Formats: sequence, structure tokens, C-alpha cells
Amino acid sequence: MPTIARLDTQQPDFDQALERLLSWESVADTGVRDAVDEILGAVRSEGDTAVLRYTAKFDRLDRAAVSDLEIPHDRLQAALESIPAEQRKALEMASARIRRYAEHQLMRDWDFTDEDGTVLGQRVTALDSVGLYVPGGKAAYPSSVLMNAIPAKVAGVELLVMVVPAPGGELNDLVLAAAAVAGVDRVFTVGGAQAVAALAYGTQTIPAVDKIVGPGNIFVAAAKREVFGTVGIDMIAGPSEILVVCDGETDPDWIAADLFSQAEHDEQAQSILLSWDDAFLDRVAEAMDRLLEEMPRAEIIRTSLDKRGALVKVRDSAEAVAVANRIAPEHLELSVADPQAMLDAGLRHAGAIFMGRYTSEALGDYCAGPNHVLPTSRTARFSSPLGVYDFQKRSSIIHCSAEGAAKLGETAAALAHGEGLTAHARSAELRSR
Amino acid sequence: MPTIARLDTQQPDFDQALERLLSWESVADTGVRDAVDEILGAVRSEGDTAVLRYTAKFDRLDRAAVSDLEIPHDRLQAALESIPAEQRKALEMASARIRRYAEHQLMRDWDFTDEDGTVLGQRVTALDSVGLYVPGGKAAYPSSVLMNAIPAKVAGVELLVMVVPAPGGELNDLVLAAAAVAGVDRVFTVGGAQAVAALAYGTQTIPAVDKIVGPGNIFVAAAKREVFGTVGIDMIAGPSEILVVCDGETDPDWIAADLFSQAEHDEQAQSILLSWDDAFLDRVAEAMDRLLEEMPRAEIIRTSLDKRGALVKVRDSAEAVAVANRIAPEHLELSVADPQAMLDAGLRHAGAIFMGRYTSEALGDYCAGPNHVLPTSRTARFSSPLGVYDFQKRSSIIHCSAEGAAKLGETAAALAHGEGLTAHARSAELRSR
Repeated sequence: MPTIARLDTQQPDFDQALERLLSWESVADTGVRDAVDEILGAVRSEGDTAVLRYTAKFDRLDRAAVSDLEIPHDRLQAALESIPAEQRKALEMASARIRRYAEHQLMRDWDFTDEDGTVLGQRVTALDSVGLYVPGGKAAYPSSVLMNAIPAKVAGVELLVMVVPAPGGELNDLVLAAAAVAGVDRVFTVGGAQAVAALAYGTQTIPAVDKIVGPGNIFVAAAKREVFGTVGIDMIAGPSEILVVCDGETDPDWIAADLFSQAEHDEQAQSILLSWDDAFLDRVAEAMDRLLEEMPRAEIIRTSLDKRGALVKVRDSAEAVAVANRIAPEHLELSVADPQAMLDAGLRHAGAIFMGRYTSEALGDYCAGPNHVLPTSRTARFSSPLGVYDFQKRSSIIHCSAEGAAKLGETAAALAHGEGLTAHARSAELRSR
Repeated sequence: MPTIARLDTQQPDFDQALERLLSWESVADTGVRDAVDEILGAVRSEGDTAVLRYTAKFDRLDRAAVSDLEIPHDRLQAALESIPAEQRKALEMASARIRRYAEHQLMRDWDFTDEDGTVLGQRVTALDSVGLYVPGGKAAYPSSVLMNAIPAKVAGVELLVMVVPAPGGELNDLVLAAAAVAGVDRVFTVGGAQAVAALAYGTQTIPAVDKIVGPGNIFVAAAKREVFGTVGIDMIAGPSEILVVCDGETDPDWIAADLFSQAEHDEQAQSILLSWDDAFLDRVAEAMDRLLEEMPRAEIIRTSLDKRGALVKVRDSAEAVAVANRIAPEHLELSVADPQAMLDAGLRHAGAIFMGRYTSEALGDYCAGPNHVLPTSRTARFSSPLGVYDFQKRSSIIHCSAEGAAKLGETAAALAHGEGLTAHARSAELRSR
């Protein structure tokens, strides 16, 4: 039987209890940082040699050259043809839906002309090259390949390089098949901080890229944080989270399964349910007890719910909105009769919002279309799901007419003199004559 | 007479010479990191007390309470009324143009409905609160207040908190006036890592914000890097850069002034000119010699050009495009007859592009409209100017019909079973019945 905290917004210490429940910090201890610094430095200066050395050491994969670590295209295609038909169909269907949603995100150029004939605008271009980190071993998720690769390809990225560790040479065919479906250009079986370093600095064999995305363990995360600036990175993800808001009218078994689906990711994952119906919270607790034993990952679920889960009684729907905004969850399920009303009431902070009783979070993980790479640990207050826009960038365009330059030059010169920057002023004034 | 490197793409070691010229790394040495860690920890645990202590220590500003460090609204308004009319007019004109450009960047909601009645979309909301760091002392730039604050306000940020150090109590009226014009909500005279910590964690008096933007010294940059994750941050900027591409037909004095206007920022700033007209490079060198002595910041300009400047002979316009893409400059001036042709020829990587002979970079710094906060140190390969979009975030919306949930549930379950995630599969299957 899982134990899960019960909270009530009316309890005097609710604020502190919620704060404690939500607190989570990545442990970037000095040991990890030092190890990562060493790996980054070695790959940067030695290139392929260092990549081979670390791959032999950490993944027990001894190769003569990094080119032996590259997986050729026909191997990806063979994986796609070898997987069960049902899974291939699911990959292709998910891929089509993810692509279709992503296409709505494409940013486009715009410009306008002001009264003086000066054209101002914004030009949008794709990144040239992107690296995609895919975890190996037990956390090898083909859906993650689709979610990271497809937006990059929709953006127009020409070179998409995937790295995936193959401990002891073991590879997941579903992951390779996903790479084939998503159109990944090159794949190397390299992992850890050494893979991040190779993508950031380039080696004789692995090309340097402009941005690195994808989830990884603590070493990968620390390496990404370190190379940020040399290349772009996506957000550094914390544990997965779900917040379900329910009016008490959804089948409690559905809600229990939704909370489980988050908890089964890992022991740090967080599942929270808000409801203004106290009896419903009891019914969900009962359903969890009953359904837990059917779950192969029951131990992980139990630990996660025990450490980080909660069933929270709120006063009403308005208070649920306020608490949800405070939590700013990665996944927010509004299992209520009128979910739109909650958005209209000011619900603002969440990575993805699953509206209504039928929209389980699991659909979003795989195939609904929107990305499953979402801001965690309350970062939805200021950041967004991974999207096509993460693989495009903007350049400002300014094209002054002679008249515009003369007029703007006066203003610029006034401000430049105010800041004591004479060359700025001169550069503007020369064209104002 | 400034010395400035002369390069030619035909010289055998051009690639290495260019690489050396461009190389720049921020020195986040351990000393800085340790000092910053201590300040962040102290402000996080002690709040106001630590802020007061560090402000007394670093800014020689001894106050009894942090509320004494807040600058009231009427003081901002008074500053606006006290500055010369010409400067006030310039601030207001610049502000109007920056706002107008920013309004074009507003992202909006969208959605679409698929064949099964499932609604997919994206909801855009503003960040609740933003902190704006403004450097004090010699680098007190009112234009920087406008450029950071206005996009946040256009996005709809409700609480915009500015921090600006006031060493010895000294304040720049033009900066305060800019805060009044831009609609900043609260201003505290706190600086350094302690200001970043206060904004990230909140103190008894200074509110915690969701994102911190604005330039600062090495301590501020290190502190921002450290609190990234707790709050959002903008890019950590390197020295300012300009790349001018000229066909040899622009007045050499104009180009010299443009190169100076970048070089006068600081000794690390970088000014590079590309031309396929060798004689023109000589004429610009001559103009620089002649004009330098008129510059009050001649010493800074001289050092910057000597250490990091270059006049580069390229073969032709096509090669200029290739070299410019490789440099990926913050500011790119296309001082040529047909700048659009260079964009069409594949020019892709630059923060802001100044088109044609009349568009000096200085206009963009102050008042053309587009933001002057731009990606530096080749990060234009993967990042964008500061904009309204940096103060908005997106939430994915998924609203399945019963039919849609049943259909998507099959695909999701197939993939979930493939990944060994039974609770995910169950959550989808329960709704497929």
C-alpha cells in the first residue's frame, strides 16, 4: 500500500508544507564538476583519442577509431524493419503528429517601413547543426528521439547528430528505428560528458554542433551546463512531475493511473492531485492501493509517491488555480467539466495542459503532437516546451533611408553624448549631414 | 596611430589567424566563483541583513534597512524632469520606437482541431515578474534600461524590478529618467552578486522574480549563471563586436567611425572590416589614424583595435558571406550597394544586420527600434536578440475528444509497452475502452 501525504490548504502550515514538498535541487557536487571538467578538457585537447579512452572506460566499448562508433544509415533502417509492425506503425503515427504540431510553431520573417522609409524587421533562420543526446541503458526512450529530432528537422537544421551510449555494445532497436523515422543524419555510440564535449568542441571524427539538446544523467547535465555559451543547450531537466486537478467526477481509477504514470519514471518523480472534494481524494487513495500491485514498477511508484507525492484538498476551483500557478508543474491535467474556465480564471504556469477527463498525460508523452520535453521544477514560470523555435534564431534587420538616418542620427547622437560615447555620436552624425 | 591587424583570406594560415582573433573566453575563475557562492548563500539564508552588509562593503552605502535603498517613484519622475530637454526628447523618441518594434514580436495563442476532434494548441502568457540589472558607475547606460525594460512591459510583465548599484550613493539621473520612461515598477540601489541573489531568492524587502536580465561585471555574470534554473536569465554577454562588410564605395570616414564606435566600449571589444577592395582597407586605416585623436576615448579604442581588431581582405562578396557566417557577429554592417543580395546569398548568422551605407550601428544602439541586447562571441549561431518573446512563455494545450483519446491511446499504449512503462499504457488504455 503506497503512503502518500495528505495536505489541506486550510492547515496552518500549508505554505511551508507545500514548499518542502516542491523543493528539489540538482546535486551538482564538486566531485561531479571536477570529473566533468577533466573529461571536457581532455576531449577538447585530444579529440578522438580521449573519446575512445572514455568510451572504453565507461561503456566497456573498446574500438580502434571513433569511426567504428558511428552507426551507418542502413543499420538504422534495418532496425526500423526489424521491430514489430505495431511498434513501427506507432512510431510513424506519432512522428506524423509531432511533425504536424511542430509545423505550427515555425517562426517567419517580418518587416515594416516607418514614416521616414526606414525598414525594420526580423529575419528567421535555422541553426546549422544540432546534437541530440539520447540516454542508453534502462532509460532508452524512442519517444525522446522523436520529440527532440523532429522539431529540429522541421526548423530546417541540416545536420542532426545523435549520440547514444551503448554500454557493452548493447543498442536498443526501437531507439535506432526512431532515429530513422525522425531523419537523424549521423549517429555515434558515445555517451556521458565525453559525448557532450565532442559535440561542443568537435573532434577529428565527430562534428562540432551549434546546440545540444536531450536528457541525460548528472554527468551529462553538468557537462551541458559547462559548455553552455560555446554551444546552446536546452533546459537542464529535473525529475518529471504531474499535477492533476479534479472536480471529483472522473473515474478514480483513471486518476490513480495518471498519478502512477508519472511516479513510475523514477523515485524523484512527483505526482500531486488537487481536489475540492475530500471524499474523492479518499477514493483515489483507495484506487491507488488496489491498482498498485498490477504495476511492474510498483517499487519505484511506491517510493516516488511516498517521498514526493501528495493529495491536496483545496477550497474550490479558484484556489486550485492559485495553487497550480504556484506549483507551475511540468504536466497539468485539468480533469474537470469545464477546463477552459480554469484557464480563463488565470491559470498561467504549466509546461503542458491536458484538458478534460479524456486527455491523459500519457497521450502527450507519446503521440498527441505537442512536445514531451517540458520545463520542470517550477521553471514553467519562465520557460516553454521544446519546440521548433529552439532550433531557429532571429536576426534584427535595420535598413535606413538617407532621411531616416539623418533623423535617427540626431536622437542617437543626443543619447550617445549623454553616455559619453563620442565615436557612437560621430558615426551617427557623419550620416546626418 | 592605432595598429590593427591586416589579414587576407589567401594567406596560408588565415583559418588559424581568424580563429585566434575571435577566440575569447570569459574568465570564470575559481576565485570569482567562490566569492559569488558565498554571497548567494548569505543572501539566501539571511535576506535583507546580507544585502545591507554587502552594499555597505562593496558600494560604501551604509543603510539601516533595505527599504532605505529603494528609490521612490517620484524620484524617478523628478530625474526625468531635471534632465536637459533634448535628452528627454531623445529618451522618449527612442522609447516609442523600441516599443513599436517590440509590439511586432508579441507571440499569440493558436490552436487547431484534428480529424478526431482533438484540439491541439499553444497558449502564450507573460512572465509574472522580471528583475533588471543595470550597471552603475562608468557603464551606466540609460539606453540599456530602455532596451531591457520595454520588451518586458510589452510582453505584459506586471512586476519589473530594477537594481542598480550606487557606489558612494552616486546615481545617474539619465538612468533614473530612463526607468521612468520605460515604466519600471520598483528600483533598488543594490548591485553585484548580492542584487542577483536578492532577485533570485527574494528577501524580506526585495521581491523574488522569475527571470533576471541585463548586463553586469564578472561577478554579476557568474551569479546569474549560478542562479539559472531557480530563475531564468538572458544570455551572458561577452565583449561587444562589429563586423563591417564594405564594397569600397562608402566614405572611409564613416567606416572608421563605425569601427571606433564598437572599439570605444572597452578594451575587449572587437571591430573587424571585410572588403574585397584592398585599396579601400588602406583608406580606412588612414581615416582611423586621422580621426583617432578627436576621440575622448582614444586610449580604449587604440587598445581594442590593437588587441582584437582586423582589416580583412576577402576575394569577393561570396567569400565575405562565408567569413561573416563563420564570425557570426553581434553587429553586422553591410555597407554595400545591394545588401539584400548578401542575405539572399546565404548570410545567416548575426545578431543585428545593418543594411546599406546609411545604417550605422550606433542607430541600432539607441533608437532605431530593434533591441541592442544581442548575442555575442559567435552565439548568434544559435541565439537571438533580446525580445518580447524572452518575457513570454508557452504552454502546450491538448484537449482530446473521447474518440481521439481512444485512437491516440492505442498508439501511446504500444509505445509505452515498448518502453516498459505499464502505468503509462494503463492510463491511456483505461480511456480507450
